[in-house]
Amino acid sequence: MLHPPAVALGIDLAVLSGSASDSAAQVVARHVVGDEAGLGDLRAFADQVDVLTFDHEHVPGEDLRALESAGIRVRPGSAALAHAQDKAHMRAAFDALGLPVPAHRVVSGEGDVATFAAEVGGYPVVLKTARGGYDGRGVWVVDHPDAGRDAFRAGVPVVAEAFVPFRRELAALVARAPSGQAVAYPVVESVQRDGICVEVVAPAPGLPADTANAAQRLALRIADGLGVVGVLAVELFETDEGQLLVNELAMRPHNTGHWSIDGAVTSQFENHLRAVLDWPLGAPNPLAPVTVMVNVLGGSRTDLATALPHVMTRDPALKVHLYGKSVRPGRKVGHVTVLGDDVEELRARAWHAADALTGVIDP
Amino acid sequence: MLHPPAVALGIDLAVLSGSASDSAAQVVARHVVGDEAGLGDLRAFADQVDVLTFDHEHVPGEDLRALESAGIRVRPGSAALAHAQDKAHMRAAFDALGLPVPAHRVVSGEGDVATFAAEVGGYPVVLKTARGGYDGRGVWVVDHPDAGRDAFRAGVPVVAEAFVPFRRELAALVARAPSGQAVAYPVVESVQRDGICVEVVAPAPGLPADTANAAQRLALRIADGLGVVGVLAVELFETDEGQLLVNELAMRPHNTGHWSIDGAVTSQFENHLRAVLDWPLGAPNPLAPVTVMVNVLGGSRTDLATALPHVMTRDPALKVHLYGKSVRPGRKVGHVTVLGDDVEELRARAWHAADALTGVIDP
Repeated sequence: MLHPPAVALGIDLAVLSGSASDSAAQVVARHVVGDEAGLGDLRAFADQVDVLTFDHEHVPGEDLRALESAGIRVRPGSAALAHAQDKAHMRAAFDALGLPVPAHRVVSGEGDVATFAAEVGGYPVVLKTARGGYDGRGVWVVDHPDAGRDAFRAGVPVVAEAFVPFRRELAALVARAPSGQAVAYPVVESVQRDGICVEVVAPAPGLPADTANAAQRLALRIADGLGVVGVLAVELFETDEGQLLVNELAMRPHNTGHWSIDGAVTSQFENHLRAVLDWPLGAPNPLAPVTVMVNVLGGSRTDLATALPHVMTRDPALKVHLYGKSVRPGRKVGHVTVLGDDVEELRARAWHAADALTGVIDP
Repeated sequence: MLHPPAVALGIDLAVLSGSASDSAAQVVARHVVGDEAGLGDLRAFADQVDVLTFDHEHVPGEDLRALESAGIRVRPGSAALAHAQDKAHMRAAFDALGLPVPAHRVVSGEGDVATFAAEVGGYPVVLKTARGGYDGRGVWVVDHPDAGRDAFRAGVPVVAEAFVPFRRELAALVARAPSGQAVAYPVVESVQRDGICVEVVAPAPGLPADTANAAQRLALRIADGLGVVGVLAVELFETDEGQLLVNELAMRPHNTGHWSIDGAVTSQFENHLRAVLDWPLGAPNPLAPVTVMVNVLGGSRTDLATALPHVMTRDPALKVHLYGKSVRPGRKVGHVTVLGDDVEELRARAWHAADALTGVIDP
């Protein structure tokens, strides 16, 4: 999804991917298949480009530091990216910045969890592996002392967090250039199922303006405080009392910003490119009062194109994005976007399309 | 520009281009360098695809007919495309459809031109080579008997046309699927300089609704009458009396529709793909009250990126599209687009950006 704005702006985008069947490798003319985690391939690739950036956070920090030592421009830099790669490190930074976050502590066994639970008012507590989690993996909501065992199996540090009753989840997405220039996208509502984002509404319906502003300021403060370059997505809880708590962050174009491809003047992908090149950033303004994005999650239908004619006939204004991935249950294999005025009408249209594509409904 | 919607819709787009430095070859993963006019390369390429389409009209008709005879799905088909490839053939079809067109006749020498001029009320008359013209090449406005000599030098048939005093040029763009389904984009004003489109305003400012409707109906009638599949752009004169006359047509995504990439729910490129695949077409609705597109024509500045920081800083909402072409004077090497409400403000912004990129102004 970085490719279209790269082409439009004359940016010579090259992609290093783990496999020739990766989405980007299928469509980008200049791609190299190699090991993103092996310094050999990574270094050979990096030597051919002016700026190195990422669409995930899995390149090991030590490799990034080695590249930086060799003079390669890595954006976001390894020091900033470390916060997105390690939830314990992230939370230490949140504390240092004085951000509102759920109570948390690094725990090293079930005894620690019980102590922590007692301190925060009892179960449930949330356990998260500090590294390697994604789309709900590496997260456990634990409601009694014995339930936390799985979290410690991976052998990586585990963070315990107080379970916060919340009204909904929000996301504040910003892009920041090395110059310090930054833009903030409208704050969105992110609907999660089993820890996976399934729907995004931009802007978050009914969010008071001062809360939206506070969320944008939080994200800008984090971007500045951590020295982020590129897109930063800050996932937030809106508590039952209307307070904001920072939950997680990501330093890359993020699922909660996919609506911006069709729904904003400048997409998160274009602004990520502009930011990592230290170019002036583009306007993040929405093109319509409301944009709804619904993820296409792999279901029973392995050929997503089957229902395309139905979807296109039923809703000529809907935008379909398929990722060229093989369909596996629950895998993000695409998304759909609709622009308009009425949240509920747009949600119904987007869900119908996503459900038809995946086979939840058989049109 | 067909590539982004192809990727989003999961269409496996392959490109045959004359050179590895062609714009499309630079960015599309699946590309083949070969001779578009040689049946060998064309046939080898066509055998690998389900549907063959074009972003220009220069593939010889006999080659297309040979492919069709071999069972290859060519869209638009050779019979329809012949009208866009030959202006004499096009005008015969206009007459057969009873369309409003300037008086015209195929002429075979300067004597014929003088006779024609006398019949249509005198000079100037317009001479057009029937084949091979593009962006003002192959067109002469002739104001005395000896001035038409150049038109006959190429040895191809020449069409003489009455010179029509017109208020402005319009373009009506439609997309049509083999099923007969068609969509009409808002009618635009196309500003020409030296026979080259330099600016497009969508919709055409101040165009009466009934005239706009009539223009759309004309384009739909031509698409249906000629059996067009894909995008059809009909260039029109709006005469001083407010009448419409058909000037030219193109059967491919057209410069007068480039505004739709950023300015419409479904771009002309996406609808061209949907049409040639016989998929349901997308909504052609504009995203803003006014969209202005200005071409970036090669000027004194050979590196278009030089002024990008200025352009991006000055106008964060402007969309820049560079084509990856080497800069030659007058060559279309990109375009810029802005969306908003006020035509004159948008024109000023778009022209400033285009002029800064090309070096007309030095910011």
